[in-house]
Amino acid sequence: MAATENMEQTCAAGMMTLYDWRTGPYPARVRIALAEKTLRARVRFVSVNLWKGEHKTPAFLAKNYSGTLPVLELADGTLIAECTAITQYLDTLDGAPVLTGATPREQGLIHMMTRRAELELLDPVSVYFHHGTPGLGPQVELYQNPEWGLRQRDRAVRGMRYFDDLLTRQPFVAAGAFSMADIAVIAGLIFADLVQLPIPEDCNALSAWYARMQARPSVANRIAMSETAP
Amino acid sequence: MAATENMEQTCAAGMMTLYDWRTGPYPARVRIALAEKTLRARVRFVSVNLWKGEHKTPAFLAKNYSGTLPVLELADGTLIAECTAITQYLDTLDGAPVLTGATPREQGLIHMMTRRAELELLDPVSVYFHHGTPGLGPQVELYQNPEWGLRQRDRAVRGMRYFDDLLTRQPFVAAGAFSMADIAVIAGLIFADLVQLPIPEDCNALSAWYARMQARPSVANRIAMSETAP
Repeated sequence: MAATENMEQTCAAGMMTLYDWRTGPYPARVRIALAEKTLRARVRFVSVNLWKGEHKTPAFLAKNYSGTLPVLELADGTLIAECTAITQYLDTLDGAPVLTGATPREQGLIHMMTRRAELELLDPVSVYFHHGTPGLGPQVELYQNPEWGLRQRDRAVRGMRYFDDLLTRQPFVAAGAFSMADIAVIAGLIFADLVQLPIPEDCNALSAWYARMQARPSVANRIAMSETAP
Repeated sequence: MAATENMEQTCAAGMMTLYDWRTGPYPARVRIALAEKTLRARVRFVSVNLWKGEHKTPAFLAKNYSGTLPVLELADGTLIAECTAITQYLDTLDGAPVLTGATPREQGLIHMMTRRAELELLDPVSVYFHHGTPGLGPQVELYQNPEWGLRQRDRAVRGMRYFDDLLTRQPFVAAGAFSMADIAVIAGLIFADLVQLPIPEDCNALSAWYARMQARPSVANRIAMSETAP
């Protein structure tokens, strides 16, 4: 008994917890990063049911004031919310592949394009879902502003056109390699698909890039991986 | 003449350009970071007049698709938008003081709290300004959603109460030292002051922290520094 406890403590020492929801586009960003960095085995997943509003309960709000997923809990209890912050943490933990940039210039560009992907695509799709559609339902969506939601839907489509244009000139969203910025655009398109907001038909570069991204194991297995014991 | 040109080229080699507006709360974040890191002399400032909508012209949108200030242009022409990205770039350029964290845990916490300061205070104040007040005037504010603006004003006040509570327990917003996250909250309170949204009277910890922050030369001189030749 004592030996088992000791072993559990040893195994748990470096173990992290990800508060997660398997179909959530934001949690997918962290799962993709974990897979890219081969860190899956260091994380246990705890489901927080968005459809039941479990992310808005006092217990969860104590973990993340903003009431959003994902949240990474370190072995020492430190709580890190926000995808960019979690990815930065994971990336600084170990080496290749580097998702947040190896040089100052790369780091600047990757952080910029990640934020731009949020501002111009992912976050607008999220606002459209929560305000311009029934969202998570009347029990969870206590306030909706449909006009704002539709406005953000249009912004997201403009964002798709921006990234399409960008990807006619370069193979990845920022710098010369796959990065956190690609993951943010992927999450935007995952969310857009969930709310039936298709990529415009003439956005060939964006569609071709997305097909390449979906072929990456980290992206293809993003939901299955949350169900597999590490 | 040739000698002067050569000298100018030499001086310009490592010179960066900040697209800036002296009273803008977002550009202030980068000016404060520059002052903290003693990098002021490496940057020339170019004014982009927000009240005239110069940040929405095609020429500026070509520099930053999102049409926001600040933007940092490197000597090689690379354009970096978004305050977090610019601060990350500047911080990785040189050493102390480190504004984005020295360890993985610090980096994670600082990025999280910076984003939280944006989500829960600075960005809501900005949305309130642009949607719940006349903002930059009818020539620039082509669409307004006053209900959303007022909603965000209330969110910002809740954000102040969140940071007040946090600052009863710790001297800085993230980790144990002054960081990018403090700068983001400072910018939120600068913007709140501009739109006459005061800190609630009972938020003693937030008010005391803000008084300490305003006494820092980087914060006190944030407007004057943009007018001084490097």
